[in-house]
Amino acid sequence: MKVKTAEGVREYRTVWMEENVVNLIDQRKLPHSFGICQSPDYRETVSAIRDMVVRGAPAIGAAAAYAMAQAASEYRSRDVSGFMKHMAHAAETIKSARPTAYDLFDAVDFVGESISRAVSVDEARGAAVKSSHSYADKSAENCRLIGVKGAKLIKDGCKVLTHCNAGALACVDYGTALSPVRFAHYAEKKVHVFVDETRPRFQGSKLTAWELLQEGIPFSVIVDNAAGYFMRKGDVDVVIIGADRITRNGDVVNKIGTYEKAVVAKENGVPFYVAVPETSFDRNVMRGDEVVIEERSGEEVLFADGVRVAPLGSIARNPSFDVTPKGYVSGYITEKGIKKF
Amino acid sequence: MKVKTAEGVREYRTVWMEENVVNLIDQRKLPHSFGICQSPDYRETVSAIRDMVVRGAPAIGAAAAYAMAQAASEYRSRDVSGFMKHMAHAAETIKSARPTAYDLFDAVDFVGESISRAVSVDEARGAAVKSSHSYADKSAENCRLIGVKGAKLIKDGCKVLTHCNAGALACVDYGTALSPVRFAHYAEKKVHVFVDETRPRFQGSKLTAWELLQEGIPFSVIVDNAAGYFMRKGDVDVVIIGADRITRNGDVVNKIGTYEKAVVAKENGVPFYVAVPETSFDRNVMRGDEVVIEERSGEEVLFADGVRVAPLGSIARNPSFDVTPKGYVSGYITEKGIKKF
Repeated sequence: MKVKTAEGVREYRTVWMEENVVNLIDQRKLPHSFGICQSPDYRETVSAIRDMVVRGAPAIGAAAAYAMAQAASEYRSRDVSGFMKHMAHAAETIKSARPTAYDLFDAVDFVGESISRAVSVDEARGAAVKSSHSYADKSAENCRLIGVKGAKLIKDGCKVLTHCNAGALACVDYGTALSPVRFAHYAEKKVHVFVDETRPRFQGSKLTAWELLQEGIPFSVIVDNAAGYFMRKGDVDVVIIGADRITRNGDVVNKIGTYEKAVVAKENGVPFYVAVPETSFDRNVMRGDEVVIEERSGEEVLFADGVRVAPLGSIARNPSFDVTPKGYVSGYITEKGIKKF
Repeated sequence: MKVKTAEGVREYRTVWMEENVVNLIDQRKLPHSFGICQSPDYRETVSAIRDMVVRGAPAIGAAAAYAMAQAASEYRSRDVSGFMKHMAHAAETIKSARPTAYDLFDAVDFVGESISRAVSVDEARGAAVKSSHSYADKSAENCRLIGVKGAKLIKDGCKVLTHCNAGALACVDYGTALSPVRFAHYAEKKVHVFVDETRPRFQGSKLTAWELLQEGIPFSVIVDNAAGYFMRKGDVDVVIIGADRITRNGDVVNKIGTYEKAVVAKENGVPFYVAVPETSFDRNVMRGDEVVIEERSGEEVLFADGVRVAPLGSIARNPSFDVTPKGYVSGYITEKGIKKF
């Protein structure tokens, strides 16, 4: 993705690994300052995932793949069975970093699979590093293709509404929901993006707005409450969002508030697209309602970016995700094209 | 309303007048500290309305009525025609305090009417004070009746969702949407309230949560995005909101986000009630879409309670109200009972 730095516009990935150090754009500091968090070993990378230095399912996946490579690299003995035990433990630790992200499990299993037939620790280490890079590269390429294929939904002058951050910062590069917007912009189509701020963590106003500013794509930040107002006014041509997971029947598990936007979009005849890589389709779960929804600390609600906005003694509920049944989805934009269920 | 103070639980109105001093619960300091703003003359009361010490249409109305009484009391001569000129000027000043509050005009005209036939300044002063108290008492009584009549919608164990603050703090006492909740609680029914935080100004998490804490009514603060999640889960039995205005055909003009909640409520078969005094029905406007929606400064969106949550260079849109077409409304709770259109 493009980032405006003191030295001019530079290309960055959200997560990459160099010499066993995992580099992550520190998303906790955005949009006010841009910095890179460097993690020297897999436990630190797990902490970074847990502490949301990195967030967004594909970016978490790549960080997890690299964490597996770090775990493999740190093993000092030549005992293959000891190595496999070490890796099994590492895999478990990495998978426990966040409960809902399917990509996390997928990435860990992908790297785990690559080492399963290794006959020496050296060979396994090399395979882990190589497969972690393949995983990240494939993830970036999928997002590029989502952009190329999804851009056809965006006509010249189009107004797009998006929720949360399903941009390059949520992925290795390009983004999912924002990738079609980027490629429409690169094709010199006029685009305007309505950016839901996305309480409680403001990923829209902080991250999506930041990415769009870097690219020079026009946008308006709105409170989540205002999305329906603009849809009803006819100011939104299409809603494009990302997803954490799509269940076998097409239900969408995504950031809290997605369901409301989908219902209101349908009510107003606004097409509602979900942009995801094929890996986000979870064949093991039939329906969205079978997915356990993570409920995070109420502090995220009682405080807005560190400022207390509710009286002492208040209790908050804070589900992080919701389920949008497939009936609200106009189509799924993947690296293979636009499909329906 | 009940307020927990150092001396125990006390009863307060949001606005009242004693010996020509207007007392207002200072809503700018809530929920973190409770204080009374005392205004010795009508110009100060106008400033208090303008500076949002008091907010909510019925509360603003009562403050305006008392400001008229203060204006009458401060006139020192016995010249009736001079008095009438003084009052006409005061009326104009008071009406200019806020641009859109219908109750403000209504209250000023109500007190103005009460002095119009007075034959002496003394008589007029007395009439102004008396009618200002009548105005406030009537306003409180309407809200009490909304509570008594609306409470029948709330069964034992009921979970109510509300948006913004349509509580006692927005009125003279009891509130509109919160009045039925109060009376259900007084009748010892178990009630739980889901409190939408209500971005951009957090009237839900700040004011509604504060009122419910004072009364000891259990509640959960949620981000506006989570309302749909709880409705879809079946955790919400009824939505009750207030309104700034109801147009002739039954459309509801209320705080931004109301429309989204109404659409999602209907989709999930959750009854959606609007609690308002009869005075909020505006016979002069046929449909909601004829009402001009105030768009406030984008700073309210780009900052959350004073903290910047979007990068420099961002632009925000900030419509303050939206229109909920009458088709989404299950009924209107007024002092006369529960009615449909």
